[in-house]
Parts: sequence; structure tokens; C-alpha cells
Amino acid sequence: MIGGMDAHLAQLFDFLRFPSVSTDPACRDDVSACGQWLYEKFVSMGLFAEVRGTPGHPVIFARSEPRPGLKTVLIYGHYDVQPADPLEQWTSDPFEPRLADGIITARGAADNKGQIMAHILGVEEAMAHTGGKLPVNVLFVVEGEEEIGSPNLEVFLREHAEDLHCDVIVISDTTMVAPGVPTLTYGLRGIGCIEVRVTGPSVDLHSGIYGGAVLNPIAALTAMLATLHDGEGRITVPGFCDAVEPLQDWERKAWAELPLDDTRLLEITGAPALVGEPGYTALERMWARPTIEINGIGGGYQGEGTKTVIPRSAFAKLTFRLVPRQSALEANRQVAEHLRRVAPAGVKVEIIEGHHGDPYMVNPHSGFGKAAQRALEKTFGKKTAVIREGGSIPIVQSFKEILGVDTLLLGLALPDCRAHSPNENFPVANFEAGIRLNQELLREIGAAALA
Amino acid sequence: MIGGMDAHLAQLFDFLRFPSVSTDPACRDDVSACGQWLYEKFVSMGLFAEVRGTPGHPVIFARSEPRPGLKTVLIYGHYDVQPADPLEQWTSDPFEPRLADGIITARGAADNKGQIMAHILGVEEAMAHTGGKLPVNVLFVVEGEEEIGSPNLEVFLREHAEDLHCDVIVISDTTMVAPGVPTLTYGLRGIGCIEVRVTGPSVDLHSGIYGGAVLNPIAALTAMLATLHDGEGRITVPGFCDAVEPLQDWERKAWAELPLDDTRLLEITGAPALVGEPGYTALERMWARPTIEINGIGGGYQGEGTKTVIPRSAFAKLTFRLVPRQSALEANRQVAEHLRRVAPAGVKVEIIEGHHGDPYMVNPHSGFGKAAQRALEKTFGKKTAVIREGGSIPIVQSFKEILGVDTLLLGLALPDCRAHSPNENFPVANFEAGIRLNQELLREIGAAALA
Repeated sequence: MIGGMDAHLAQLFDFLRFPSVSTDPACRDDVSACGQWLYEKFVSMGLFAEVRGTPGHPVIFARSEPRPGLKTVLIYGHYDVQPADPLEQWTSDPFEPRLADGIITARGAADNKGQIMAHILGVEEAMAHTGGKLPVNVLFVVEGEEEIGSPNLEVFLREHAEDLHCDVIVISDTTMVAPGVPTLTYGLRGIGCIEVRVTGPSVDLHSGIYGGAVLNPIAALTAMLATLHDGEGRITVPGFCDAVEPLQDWERKAWAELPLDDTRLLEITGAPALVGEPGYTALERMWARPTIEINGIGGGYQGEGTKTVIPRSAFAKLTFRLVPRQSALEANRQVAEHLRRVAPAGVKVEIIEGHHGDPYMVNPHSGFGKAAQRALEKTFGKKTAVIREGGSIPIVQSFKEILGVDTLLLGLALPDCRAHSPNENFPVANFEAGIRLNQELLREIGAAALA
Repeated sequence: MIGGMDAHLAQLFDFLRFPSVSTDPACRDDVSACGQWLYEKFVSMGLFAEVRGTPGHPVIFARSEPRPGLKTVLIYGHYDVQPADPLEQWTSDPFEPRLADGIITARGAADNKGQIMAHILGVEEAMAHTGGKLPVNVLFVVEGEEEIGSPNLEVFLREHAEDLHCDVIVISDTTMVAPGVPTLTYGLRGIGCIEVRVTGPSVDLHSGIYGGAVLNPIAALTAMLATLHDGEGRITVPGFCDAVEPLQDWERKAWAELPLDDTRLLEITGAPALVGEPGYTALERMWARPTIEINGIGGGYQGEGTKTVIPRSAFAKLTFRLVPRQSALEANRQVAEHLRRVAPAGVKVEIIEGHHGDPYMVNPHSGFGKAAQRALEKTFGKKTAVIREGGSIPIVQSFKEILGVDTLLLGLALPDCRAHSPNENFPVANFEAGIRLNQELLREIGAAALA
């Protein structure tokens, strides 16, 4: 170790002190300073580094001196963070990291500064141990716009595709399934979204005087939305589930053994019950089944008490989560078509199709997948939880599409790390494990005969 | 005529100049001054008048010298008005009446100062013509809180029930079915209301990570609301329509001949089509069939773009309009019970029952009803439109319950009088007709042998 954990923590704390809030124009200089600090860190490690400008915040790019015949691993992370509000809910300054009881508390501690810094320090240690001769070629792509949806990353990938040629991508920006349980995420759901607007009368009408004459747009909308699922929670949009790849037996067995059961999910969600599509556990529904969720609905009077109106319009915002073999574009089209088909006479229906991203899945039992599992098990001394996740990470799909390369998602944060919330935290033990994991992983990838 | 129309208009304009906005504390003195002005007007006419204080704004009470053996007619109106906002949409000062092309434009011109002043001036003229010997005893009850829901009128009626003994009540606070068409309204719908709140998880959940694990409260709510009607618009709440009194043949025939057809209703509502319960015209649905309307709905994200949440809760605000023989209390109970019954597992449902008022109907062919029709026909020279209305006027129900007396609703305002809106207006012709109508009506009621 170079200087040991104290020195490692000191560097992470310096990194965390930058309020690199990418969404806040007032933090523009801080984001820039944070990127510059990272560039200098890479240079000091003996990597070839560059600050690559974008129309927004720069990407910090670094690479080890390329050695032919070695595999190339691209490690992705981000140095920007979410805003710290609401400030009053923090127990300490979000940009003055606090260490207590082995827990680092700061904005970005988990998402993503702590996790990417573990990889950087892992590479630094490995270079020291090997006299700069790493077992693989390493590329770092650390962007400053992940928290605002990576608006410039796709263009960056396309422009620099040549430079970014690699065999596999590693990202630690997910969570472990439970404390101390090494976790490889091999599947992510895709996303589709549409907004439905239903319009009836040209103005809000008095519901006493005119009630009965015209169809109420809220009634029309609720009737339409009620046709998206059957009474038991199955999606009923024609064709929507046709392409869904069935769960494999090994997945059902593996997930049933995870330390994330219904009791724990009831605790986390606080819902009265776990209810959904019959025939699947809650975990299976979250990770391997598609959903249609109504994220928002509005129309008419929402204040205190009563206002007797037939509103002129109502709207709902829907997103879908999609699983392998579903097409996001097709899903948007199917739901839009279905809603138009079930729309009753007497109202106008407008549907705005929004963004979409296809689902992602990699074979966790490929050569790279197995290498990742071995590295995880050596680091944590436990069997790897091989899971999917319900959310979507669009950059993983971009990497696949643009660079043609799969991603290993190796979460280091805990499920209760409070990413995006007050008192975000990251255990020192996970930070330290991450530094070791990086070295095990690069060794495993370098050593293995990989397909 | 005392001084003719110019003098009548001058008095109405004085009345209209008071910004007697009952809901606005800043107008308290103006409301009070307006009541005082009215009191003085009654005194100057030779009536016995009183300013009767309430915890809010006073009721101005007046009576002719009681003569035994005569019928007693109570004329109700209100001297308070709605706020004038949005001021910028007025073409002239709302409290400086403007007369152009035979139309008076001012806040309160139609609702209700113009209409109640027509009755007051009618009685004044009749007293002049008859040397104070009116054909009936007259009581005036003109309140200052109608626009805020008459919070003190019921107590006033109970406390002064003795003084308010009468045979029939006359109100001109409705509209004519079309310009120049005398209109007697003999039915009003009742009202019930409930709010439904559906709660699922204890916090908003990420709809990617947790989507599928729990039931979405908006999905639960929309599914519940979709069970209130069948696909064709019939109410499907068990028992809800059981007590509904069927439309009578004469009503269907009379309404079919009214100058208020589907074309006109399409114009007024601006809806793409008139859609509702099969087997009834739009007018029949508005006036003689019950409704369940969703006046407002809300839950989750309502801003621009997308936010991927499963919201912790969602709500809807419902009101029902009820027709004769339905009970408002019972309707609230039936809808609440139905929603609880269809609520899916996985969410908590809370239902708040709100205010309620029973439907009202009087026989338009009773002695008083026929007298009113004769007076209307003499005044306007046309056959009376005998209609119901879809709205609710709770005071009419209060009069019936507390004083045991029926109300004749004789609208003088036009359908496009813009009550409660900018540029409220009232034609001079209607004002003048109202003054004549009052005298015809009191004569008809006084002369007739009434049941």
C-alpha cells in the first residue's frame, strides 16, 4: 500500500470536498476544479491523462501505457454529484467529509466518488507493485455529467471510439445486495415513457349545471389507464409481453437464496403488501418482468375541499421498465396504440412518446463474468450474488451500442447508502475492499483465457 | 312608473357601485354599506325594514304591513357579489356600471343585484299603484353571504321562523333557458361528495428499482374509479340509482321543444361530442339523471418531463348530482362502500365523506306553479319553459326543510350573463321585464284560489 488507508482516505476526502454539482450553474467552477484535480491525480500516478472538453463539463480520460497482447479494461465513473438539498437534513456539512464508526458521510461518498476512487487507488497500488506493468491495459473514463443524464457522453464515445477500444468495461456505481455480499449485476431493465393528455370541453365546466352532458376527461383517462393491467396485475397491452425472455431456472434458484427477501422488501418499501403479477416473487417482478407504472396523474381541482368542475383536461405520465428481448421503441408504440384504441368517444387523446432505452443483459457466466465473480469472491470471502437490477443505466447500453463492449457492474455501495439523499455514506471497509477488488479483477482478467 | 326606467337604472347603478364582495375581508365595510343602502331603500318604499346581524354579514329583512286573509310571498335574494378578479379581463370597471347597447355590465348585474332589484322596484311600483295595498303580503330576505355558501342563513331561518311564515318563496337567481323565453325552474339536483385517498409505500419509491414489487397507488386508484361507470356511461355503483324517479313523459316532450338543443350545448361546452348514459338526451342527463363526477385527481409527479417514481399516495375528489327520491347521505355512503369494496389488496384506502344536499323538486303544475307560469307568459308574451336545472341551490332545500315552503325559481338572467366571470352583464330589457314580472306574479298569486 502507498501510504496506507490514511493516505487513501485523505485523497478521497480531498475529492469529496469539491461541490461538483453538475446541475447547478453556480457550481460550474467547482465541477471544473474537481475534474482538474482528478486529471492531476491520474498524471501523478504515471498515467497518460487528458481533460477532454464537452459542451458541458469535461470528461477526464486516462490510460496506462498500452502494452500489446494485453486485454484492455475501461473503467467508467463520474466525478459530478447530486445537489445536497435539503441541507437542513444533513447531520454534517455535505462537502466536509465526516468519518465516524467506520462510515464516511458526504455528498458523493457512495455515488460515485468513493467507488471510482477505489478503482483509481487500486490501479495506483498495482502500478507500484508491478513497476508500472499492469496485468491489463487500463483506460479511465470519468465524466462530469452523469447526474444530469450524461448528455454529452454518447457524442464523446463516438468521437473517441478509436481511443476507447477495449475488451470489457467495469463500473462500480450500483449497490451490493446486502452488506458484505459481493454482487455482480448482469441485467438492467430498459425504459420507455409516454404522456397521455385527455381533453374534453373547451373550458372547465360547472359539474352541476353540465354534469351528464359531456364525458369527464378524468373519467375517460382513469378508464383508459385501468385497461393497462388485469385485476391481478398482469399487463394487458396487446403484444407488450410477447418478446419477454422467460426467467431461467438458475436465476430463480439463485435469487431465492439472496439475503433480500419479502420481509426485507416490505421494510424497505413500507407498503402494506407486496402485490404484483401472479407467479413471480417480488424480486423476480423487480428484476426480470416488465412493468407499466403511472408515475404521475393530474387534472381538475387539487386544493382543499371541493370544487365542482368538469375539468377541460387531465393527464398521466407513464414509464415502462423492459426486460431482455423487449424493444423500448416498440413498447412506447404499443402502449400509445393501446391507449388510443381504448379511448372513449367524447374526448380527444394526445400521446407524447418520450425517451426510451433498451434493456441490457450480459452473460454472468462468460469468461469476463467468471473472472469478475472470482475477483469478488477473493476480495469479500463469500459467494457472489449474481443479480439483475430493476433500474436502467443508459450509459451501459451506450457502451454496448457504440463500443460493442459488455459491462461488468460491480457494486461497492450498500443498499442504504442514501445516494441522492441527505447523509449519503460509504463504509471505509467498502472503500478498502474496492481498492483490493480492482487489483484482483485486473489480475483475473489479465490471467484468464477469455472468450 | 315612479320616475320611469332612468330612475330605476340610477338606483340599480347605485346598488351595483358597492363592491360588496362577501369573501374579501377588505370589503367588509363595503358589504355593510351596501346592506345599509338596501335597508334605507326598503324604508323609503314604506316597508318595515330591519338590518338583522349575523356572525358574518347582516341579512336585510323587510315586510309590507301585514294584512290578514292575504297570501304571503317571501322574496329571497342576495346583495353580496363574487370577487371581480381577474380585473384585467374586464372591459370596464366592475364596480362602475356601464350601459351600452341595452346591456348593463358590472359585477353583480345579473347575480344577484339586478334580479333582486327588479323585484324590489316591482313591489315599489305596485305599492304606488295600489296606495300601499299590495295583493299579497310581501317579505324580503336579502342576505349578504350567498357567495360564500350562506353560512348563517339556516340559523337565521330557524331563529326567525315565526316572522318568516309564508305561503311561497320566490327567487330570481337562475337563468332563462334562452333570451326572451320565460323560464320556471321546478327541479334542482342534490349533491354528495367524497374524497378518496389511496396510500401504498411509505415513501415515493424509484419506479425502476422497485417497480413490480408493490402496487402503484395511482394504478389502484384509477382501477377503482373505472368501476364507477360501465363502458357506456351508466353508473354501476350498487343501489345508487335504485331510488331515482323516472322522467315523466311530459318532461321529455317539453324539454325536446326547448331552444336548448345538442348543437347549442356543443357550442357552450366546446366538447368534441355530447356523451353520457344511453337512452337520454344531454338535457335529460343534465337535469333528471344522477351523475358521479371526478372533479379532481392527483398523485405523483406533475411537472415537466419524467420522474420515475411510484408515488406513496394518490387522491381523487368526487361529487355526485342527485335527482328526486335519491338521498344525498345514502349516496355518499353507497359510493364510499363501493370504493372500499373494489379497492385492491396492497394499498390502504381512506375515504372522507363531505357535505351533501338532497335534490329538490316542486310541482310546476300546482296552483303556485300555474300562477307563476301565467305571470311569466303575461310578462314575456311567450310560453313558459318549464325546466329543471342540473346544479344545486342549497338554500331552496333549507327553505323547504325549515319553513316547510316551496320555492318558485324565476330566472331573469341570460345563459351567457357571465355570473362569477369578468364582464358580468344583464340586459336592461330583462331588468324592466323583471319589474313587470314581479307585479304580475304578486297579482296572480293574490288572485288565484291556491291549494
